[in-house]
Amino acid sequence: MTDLRLYDYAASANCYKVRLLLEQLERDYERVAIDIFDGDTLTDAYERLNPQRSTPVLELSDGRTLIESNAILWYLAAGTPLLPDDPFGQAEVCRWLIYEQSDVMPMIGGLRFRLVTGRFAPDSESAQRRRTGAHEVLRILERHLATRSFLAADRYSIADIAVYAYAHLAEEAGVDTSAYHRFHDWLERVREQPRFVDDLVPYPPNASLLAGRSIYG
Amino acid sequence: MTDLRLYDYAASANCYKVRLLLEQLERDYERVAIDIFDGDTLTDAYERLNPQRSTPVLELSDGRTLIESNAILWYLAAGTPLLPDDPFGQAEVCRWLIYEQSDVMPMIGGLRFRLVTGRFAPDSESAQRRRTGAHEVLRILERHLATRSFLAADRYSIADIAVYAYAHLAEEAGVDTSAYHRFHDWLERVREQPRFVDDLVPYPPNASLLAGRSIYG
Repeated sequence: MTDLRLYDYAASANCYKVRLLLEQLERDYERVAIDIFDGDTLTDAYERLNPQRSTPVLELSDGRTLIESNAILWYLAAGTPLLPDDPFGQAEVCRWLIYEQSDVMPMIGGLRFRLVTGRFAPDSESAQRRRTGAHEVLRILERHLATRSFLAADRYSIADIAVYAYAHLAEEAGVDTSAYHRFHDWLERVREQPRFVDDLVPYPPNASLLAGRSIYG
Repeated sequence: MTDLRLYDYAASANCYKVRLLLEQLERDYERVAIDIFDGDTLTDAYERLNPQRSTPVLELSDGRTLIESNAILWYLAAGTPLLPDDPFGQAEVCRWLIYEQSDVMPMIGGLRFRLVTGRFAPDSESAQRRRTGAHEVLRILERHLATRSFLAADRYSIADIAVYAYAHLAEEAGVDTSAYHRFHDWLERVREQPRFVDDLVPYPPNASLLAGRSIYG
């Protein structure tokens, strides 16, 4: 018996970040598999669960639900060492949770998804524009990490989990990360944390054929 | 003598939301005017203040700085009625702070900026695509407000301040909002809050000429 249910797509890094946190907090949960390529997010039932039709969704035992992966991280990490309890530290975490969804995910995760599903040709102008954005993200991270071991509040937190989820996939989006040494050191520090897991699965091999039915975008 | 300094562009709704909160919290602050069209964010000094070169930036009396408008809201509202103190309520607020920057601002604020500065022709494909996105945002808000008076935690909070900042400008982005009745009722409820102010100024009349020098994207 568990009090948490996670509606979860195994190949989504937004879902992976929640699974990673749950593992590090040693929390039990029920995992409900959602296949975005098989129309699972397009049903009326899923729309009632999440009008934005995104994954993941966290459902509590009392029926309340939370959407937006980084908001789910916030709820789960509250009161644990993975979320500071002072206003300034919380605001620093908040800054990275926002930047992750406004810049890191679209520039790296969005690019990777569009390449895998064939929406972008690798050398198209659209792909190049996102790749430029991805390098800007990596420059911001590299500069920030010049004087810090972790992104916020001088410690490993959900800010690192959130940004790691898509940032560590940059090479799969055709972005050369070899110049960003501090970034790589930081990836390694994240991977060295207790109970770190990486259970992200690849997109299905026929993702480019399936994508026409997907609403991810 | 004040302990807060706000680097602030008068025509930015990201800055306006911070000014609104400071007014509602009755906090004194020093306002440092930043003109994004006059290169103020392109200096080396500004890059040291904020490597992302965005506005606003909040500087504390001890020299620490915060960037990302909604993270600044979080810091200022902590411990006040405008930010819930329970993990679920905080996560709900967090959800809207993220959605505001990933969807509301780009689809409405970004569209408005590009129309004003002449980067998008009103009927261009790029403008139409963002307008479709703006209607999706308005549908999400309309649906959410069907059973609620405010966006998060059953009360007026920084979630409402953050989303209001750009959402109330939708008509200026050429988006017809007349079908969204609950949205308009909510805008009115925000305006009825104690110490509500709207001191957002228009972009300069020659913004389209000046925009070539701007890094706002």
